Amino acid sequence: MEKRIDILVIGAGPAGIVSALTSRKYYADKEILVIKNVDKGVIPCGIPYMFCSLKNPEDNYLGVAALEKNNISIVVDEAIKINRKEKSVSTKNNDQYFYEKLILAIGSRPILPSITGIDKKNIYSIHKEMQYLKEVVDKVKKSRDILVLGGGFIGIEFADEISKIKGANVYLVEMLPRLLANSFDHEFSILVEEKLKSNGVKILTESRVEEFLGQNTVKEVRLSSGEKLAVDCVILGIGTIPNTGLAQEADLDLGKGKGIWVDEYMRTIDPDIFAVGDCTGKRDFFTRKDAPVMLASTATSEARVAGANLYQLKVVRENKGTIAIYSTYVDGLVLGSAGLTETSAQKEGFEIIIGNAQGVDKHPGNLPGASKIKVKLIFSKQSGIILGGQVAGGFSCAEMINIVGVAIQKRISLTELETLQIATHPYLTSAPTMYPLVLAAQDAADKI
Amino acid sequence: MEKRIDILVIGAGPAGIVSALTSRKYYADKEILVIKNVDKGVIPCGIPYMFCSLKNPEDNYLGVAALEKNNISIVVDEAIKINRKEKSVSTKNNDQYFYEKLILAIGSRPILPSITGIDKKNIYSIHKEMQYLKEVVDKVKKSRDILVLGGGFIGIEFADEISKIKGANVYLVEMLPRLLANSFDHEFSILVEEKLKSNGVKILTESRVEEFLGQNTVKEVRLSSGEKLAVDCVILGIGTIPNTGLAQEADLDLGKGKGIWVDEYMRTIDPDIFAVGDCTGKRDFFTRKDAPVMLASTATSEARVAGANLYQLKVVRENKGTIAIYSTYVDGLVLGSAGLTETSAQKEGFEIIIGNAQGVDKHPGNLPGASKIKVKLIFSKQSGIILGGQVAGGFSCAEMINIVGVAIQKRISLTELETLQIATHPYLTSAPTMYPLVLAAQDAADKI
Repeated sequence: MEKRIDILVIGAGPAGIVSALTSRKYYADKEILVIKNVDKGVIPCGIPYMFCSLKNPEDNYLGVAALEKNNISIVVDEAIKINRKEKSVSTKNNDQYFYEKLILAIGSRPILPSITGIDKKNIYSIHKEMQYLKEVVDKVKKSRDILVLGGGFIGIEFADEISKIKGANVYLVEMLPRLLANSFDHEFSILVEEKLKSNGVKILTESRVEEFLGQNTVKEVRLSSGEKLAVDCVILGIGTIPNTGLAQEADLDLGKGKGIWVDEYMRTIDPDIFAVGDCTGKRDFFTRKDAPVMLASTATSEARVAGANLYQLKVVRENKGTIAIYSTYVDGLVLGSAGLTETSAQKEGFEIIIGNAQGVDKHPGNLPGASKIKVKLIFSKQSGIILGGQVAGGFSCAEMINIVGVAIQKRISLTELETLQIATHPYLTSAPTMYPLVLAAQDAADKI
Repeated sequence: MEKRIDILVIGAGPAGIVSALTSRKYYADKEILVIKNVDKGVIPCGIPYMFCSLKNPEDNYLGVAALEKNNISIVVDEAIKINRKEKSVSTKNNDQYFYEKLILAIGSRPILPSITGIDKKNIYSIHKEMQYLKEVVDKVKKSRDILVLGGGFIGIEFADEISKIKGANVYLVEMLPRLLANSFDHEFSILVEEKLKSNGVKILTESRVEEFLGQNTVKEVRLSSGEKLAVDCVILGIGTIPNTGLAQEADLDLGKGKGIWVDEYMRTIDPDIFAVGDCTGKRDFFTRKDAPVMLASTATSEARVAGANLYQLKVVRENKGTIAIYSTYVDGLVLGSAGLTETSAQKEGFEIIIGNAQGVDKHPGNLPGASKIKVKLIFSKQSGIILGGQVAGGFSCAEMINIVGVAIQKRISLTELETLQIATHPYLTSAPTMYPLVLAAQDAADKI
């Protein structure tokens, strides 16, 4: 079958969905088609919660109702080749789609480490497919000894969730000296480690898995220390790499970071092909270096830029770089990080000053439900501009890190933060005299 | 007694405390004294929670330990006269303090409406004194029929708290057609009204108290409708006016809004006298008109500007106007407002576009503890600059309104908000595809 389409989107993860929806908003008359290669997808960041918090793994279904409602067509098929000359995409089902504009939202795939025995049964990468994940959930629930490999966001969230399954014995193995080392400084990593340990997770840092042992099925792992652990199943959470095969075959450039190269408007070297989300290279907000940030929130922001600007540059992109901005949750403890950490700022060569603050998220602090809160801000010493921040505490930290995010994206100064006008309320925030972002800025100011 | 002091602060509410502490940070060698006229103060915004949420009203004590710890002296006394020529302040105890720099943080007092019978017993204004408030709490707890006059923030928080006292029958009387009319648009006021009603509060809008009836003690109120209500006690929550007597007698100028006139650095017309907080006039961030904003958070922001800049202008004030930025809490419902509402923007003559969004604060929305969330943003149509925002939902709204606040203070554009990079997490926020501030910006963009 051959078909002409105005806007063709490959991929129906968050980047694909938001690209298509945004295109629809800005180009109401165009025909839009999304090709998805997974019949039943899942909400990517919700995957850890399929193990325990959600009653039914099916509750994490990533639907396409929003697409249908907005008159966007969907086919389940796999794009296998882009022909840039005739502006077409061929699929596994032997169909050919001719496009005016093509958006690649083809995502990323889990890194498979080259460890002896990696191909044994009961060793699971995280693929974003409902049926596959239901099998993983089922297997994990039937297991006693479960090893999670990788102490980044994914790893700690899996470890936390799985530790809530009755009878589960969870190991978390990380090769660096601490958890979340890429996005938090030491004093924040410690909070997560303490929380996980108190819930019975056995954390092994500075540790590698050297071999998976067992006949066909994994039964043991051998660690770099020589120690062996009996395991029933293994979850691999050591990161993902961009899917770029389609783009490479079509002679689209890749960036140094190995994602598809795009300009500020998510255009590849071919003006009719855009790329968004995990498959795409990102440049750091501060240094313009390649930034290995693969987050659904980054992907959707890029998708909004692409969708609006397919035929004309309608929405000017004002922030021309990617900041790493995350939040995570470990059994009641909320952590957020935005921009550079102290460690990463120093590594990049920034001369910095640090502001710290601690407090309570209600006032007076004996109101019911109050949590401790801890904030760290990183500023350029000379320019006074905020470079990053980290927060830890109760639920209020989730949006507090987005305050830091806006501050970074608007390059707010230490002085502005020090005298910021903020909303405070006894039940909802620290006291106005003690608002932690302001106190942290003051603490940094003291050091000038 | 006569005493020489470098920095003299009159008042020990949030504005006084933060002025003194900030002065200490920036002028380490100066001698600082705070004169407070209340022996035992309270946290102003915590007052409603002395009635029920706090186990003991004493838990709302506003301590001065932070002052003592920072080598700031305190006397309990009342300043009665400023002599600008000899740079001194005389007190009720017949002491005289000579200053280099004087900071007036003398606050505000409740408006006493001129209603017949207002002087009867069991009619209470809200004074920020522990002993007085303990008597009020005690009286309210022993009452059955309690009338709260005023449907602004203070009034609704009192009504909510008091309605939780077993056996209490609460009336809330407001002369405007709806609650919170100064800081929220209609569709948000409704949410509060529904919540209070569902908790048994009897709301009477477009209604005035014409007379308090009873011998010495209030027994009944007569409303503008002619209706009479039996009451055991009455709480007046109709607003406050700046304390300016001391300043007026010293021939310091007042602004049109009747607060003490100050420049951008909180200096009165006398270069050695600063004024901060409720006693001080404010100018609106957008219009530069007098703004009747009296909030502890505004006060502390001003106090930080004053404290740093007493002897030299050290901290440049970058935002030269006051935004109204609040949050409030009614039995699980959190509301926040920042900047202009649709109503106030139109009244000021702004040509605007509105963006609305609704959603859930977790994703998938069936994660435990998820709340609905509702956002409204107001933009200048031509400039695309954000003028204000309102949010309602669960606890995440408290810091979300501070994101809006930073956006306003940094004059963020619709386009920037549309493509904002944000942190999202299943347990903590809406999905990245559905983040409500971004969706509301998109909704506004659709209307251009």
